[in-house]
Amino acid sequence: MKTILLKNRPTGTPQTSDFEFTDSEKPSPKDGEILLKTKYVSVDPYMRGRMRDEKSYVEPFKLNEPITTAIVAEVVESSHEKFAKGDYLTGMLPWKEFSTSDGKGLRKVDKEQVPLSANLGILGLTGLTAYFGLLEIGEPKKGETVLVSGAAGAVGSIVGQIAKLKGCKVIGIAGTDEKITMLKEKFSFDAGINYDTTDDLSAAIKEAAPDGIDVYYDNVGSYTLDAAMENINRMGRVVNCGAISLYNETEQPTGPRLETTLVKKSVKMQGFIVSNYQEKFPEGIKQLGEWLKDGKLKYEETVVEGFDNIPQAFIDLFEGKNKGKMVVKVY
Amino acid sequence: MKTILLKNRPTGTPQTSDFEFTDSEKPSPKDGEILLKTKYVSVDPYMRGRMRDEKSYVEPFKLNEPITTAIVAEVVESSHEKFAKGDYLTGMLPWKEFSTSDGKGLRKVDKEQVPLSANLGILGLTGLTAYFGLLEIGEPKKGETVLVSGAAGAVGSIVGQIAKLKGCKVIGIAGTDEKITMLKEKFSFDAGINYDTTDDLSAAIKEAAPDGIDVYYDNVGSYTLDAAMENINRMGRVVNCGAISLYNETEQPTGPRLETTLVKKSVKMQGFIVSNYQEKFPEGIKQLGEWLKDGKLKYEETVVEGFDNIPQAFIDLFEGKNKGKMVVKVY
Repeated sequence: MKTILLKNRPTGTPQTSDFEFTDSEKPSPKDGEILLKTKYVSVDPYMRGRMRDEKSYVEPFKLNEPITTAIVAEVVESSHEKFAKGDYLTGMLPWKEFSTSDGKGLRKVDKEQVPLSANLGILGLTGLTAYFGLLEIGEPKKGETVLVSGAAGAVGSIVGQIAKLKGCKVIGIAGTDEKITMLKEKFSFDAGINYDTTDDLSAAIKEAAPDGIDVYYDNVGSYTLDAAMENINRMGRVVNCGAISLYNETEQPTGPRLETTLVKKSVKMQGFIVSNYQEKFPEGIKQLGEWLKDGKLKYEETVVEGFDNIPQAFIDLFEGKNKGKMVVKVY
Repeated sequence: MKTILLKNRPTGTPQTSDFEFTDSEKPSPKDGEILLKTKYVSVDPYMRGRMRDEKSYVEPFKLNEPITTAIVAEVVESSHEKFAKGDYLTGMLPWKEFSTSDGKGLRKVDKEQVPLSANLGILGLTGLTAYFGLLEIGEPKKGETVLVSGAAGAVGSIVGQIAKLKGCKVIGIAGTDEKITMLKEKFSFDAGINYDTTDDLSAAIKEAAPDGIDVYYDNVGSYTLDAAMENINRMGRVVNCGAISLYNETEQPTGPRLETTLVKKSVKMQGFIVSNYQEKFPEGIKQLGEWLKDGKLKYEETVVEGFDNIPQAFIDLFEGKNKGKMVVKVY
């Protein structure tokens, strides 16, 4: 069976040559352990940060060791008291076709309620990232205007829909006309801006939101953030969820200083990771599940097939090749 | 009697030639009005922003009209029902030796409790700016490390003392050794950094705060903010009170992008103006007054004498010529 290791710490955009495939015997679970067969693998932009050898909110990946990421796997053997053969579990697991586990950090998923892959997306950390970032930091109020970048991505598309559920006007920024159409038609965004065909992003935001932006949910950073800040209202809130445009930078990126805008307009900018809200996860999963069941939330997935394609699926995130959540279906 | 008008909108550092003195008759109060004799005039860095012709949280000053600022004045004539001759009042008033008012927005000050000028400082908007910015945005917890820039200034020196009262370790950044001595000896700061004699501000902060910074109260912006951000802890909070180093810039200043730090470390940066907390002012004044009475808060003033010296006192703020609150004593 195959395992994918981190071979090199990427410089700039990751390459498939930064990963190494190895072959080994299928492992045997010890007493009390389970044997898991990998079904769906999540690839996410934040993983780029873990490929650097620097202190961050999670430990960096180790060289020559398997990458770990959110995975849905099937229990194929079990002597674990809580998990039985045929169960589907999710949690952080290695990029291996099969792996063993003592079950710690894994939870059972309901294979009837939603498609398995949704546990990596809307009912997984992706949905929770959208939910807590928007509601706890963005604090959107009815009638306010919410701008989302990376709006056609996994997190952004959920953020926009939750903001609509809260009674806000929602504007999304994405990189193709097809994505913009999807934002408006599938996800009920009020307006969309294709940054790739827009000369002046700040002016385009102003046109879409003549009364300014109250909440900006940022997945992108850099000049997209600058353009949003030029349109931010007094008492505005910026949710710094990600900065995908900067993750592959090799030099310290520079840009306009934002502190005078923060002071002049009493603006808050706040970064977070979803695990800050771990204690509230059950509440979030419950609410997202209800909205999903009631047809109030929709989601989009880009499903890549085949274990061998995991590294390329990850790399494609940085070119925006995904619509919605990018997952790899292994079997 | 003399009046000071804004003659030109300054480019870069304000000059005395940006102000104009005019002479006129002493005004006569109408029925129900009061005649006020200006005693103390507050000059503050934020006023630089009002000299630009751009939208901000307060209206810009108008050309060829008197500057208005916080003032303590004596009632010398009154037919107002609430204010009597001999009362001392404070509020936003014009740079005039005498002015008339209907009393709106003015409040009586207790001339026995503290020196008159303290109503422009520790018991005025200055003290409230320190109090609400630190407590509402910075949320310092016992045992945390608080860094303050502009620490020897009016706001910074109060911020540091309140942080000490909350059980924090407090480090101040200021621009002369004399100020650093004052921070430690008069205001009980744990450590001080003279930015003017320090080659590597970030390294100096690291040396003073090896466990990192939990709360950074920023009055300065620019590279001082950058150095603080390099030392900020996970879940750190940055209080963006001011950015005096940028107020005289004529070009859009640039610097390292901060969004990746915000995301990686779940950091909050939040700007504010004190009037956001207007409803809580009585609470703040009461608490500051009690601490002052109990000897738990000290303050420093730089008193410049003479109405003619108001513009120069304002300009001197940008060279850090003040220790603590800069006020002009008129009579």
